[in-house]
Amino acid sequence: MRPVLSVRLFCDNEKSFGPGIAELLRRVREKGSLRAAAASMNMAYSKAWRIAHEMEQALGYPILVSTTGGKNGGGAILTDEGEALFSAYQAYVNALQADAERLFQEYFAQCPSSPFPRR
Amino acid sequence: MRPVLSVRLFCDNEKSFGPGIAELLRRVREKGSLRAAAASMNMAYSKAWRIAHEMEQALGYPILVSTTGGKNGGGAILTDEGEALFSAYQAYVNALQADAERLFQEYFAQCPSSPFPRR
Repeated sequence: MRPVLSVRLFCDNEKSFGPGIAELLRRVREKGSLRAAAASMNMAYSKAWRIAHEMEQALGYPILVSTTGGKNGGGAILTDEGEALFSAYQAYVNALQADAERLFQEYFAQCPSSPFPRR
Repeated sequence: MRPVLSVRLFCDNEKSFGPGIAELLRRVREKGSLRAAAASMNMAYSKAWRIAHEMEQALGYPILVSTTGGKNGGGAILTDEGEALFSAYQAYVNALQADAERLFQEYFAQCPSSPFPRR
């Protein structure tokens, strides 16, 4: 029995930064390419591009930058701002998940598989 | 700019208690009826019944009990266990949301509308 969080950061009730774009960025870092990152998530490149572009518009700063040349032709890497945002989000989510597990002990009795509230 | 959490409690990788069933229970408490609660969420009664029933199966205890008679005929209320689980979940989510807002200040610089990671 365990708590699982989904953490979204909302910009003025519109766009939000959350698990989906964080996963996309994680894969861009790994693969050096937005196209390869999207493909590995079974996402159309056009959709990945739109998600990244709309997030940049909402944030007001670039999170990806194109790279040219190299073995696979053009690719993408995170900008310094994108890298810092990605890292801060990951650290934030990790801290919250640890809190969730700690607080779970406080609010619920431990049971083999089901949450019993503490009386 | 604000963090928004979704909190799910997973039972052995299968069923989970989360925002949807919590909202359904909140409305059952308010309306005294699963049918009225479902209708107010634009949810088919059969679906609401299935969700509640499957959750009871996963938990191993009843969360709703039927009431009979009264002005509107049969209705439903939360069992003591259902009430305690609902209350514990709400308190848990509130505590986590407060943590999320506190930690947000730590991990992100405050900006008018966008999350800038702290350097």
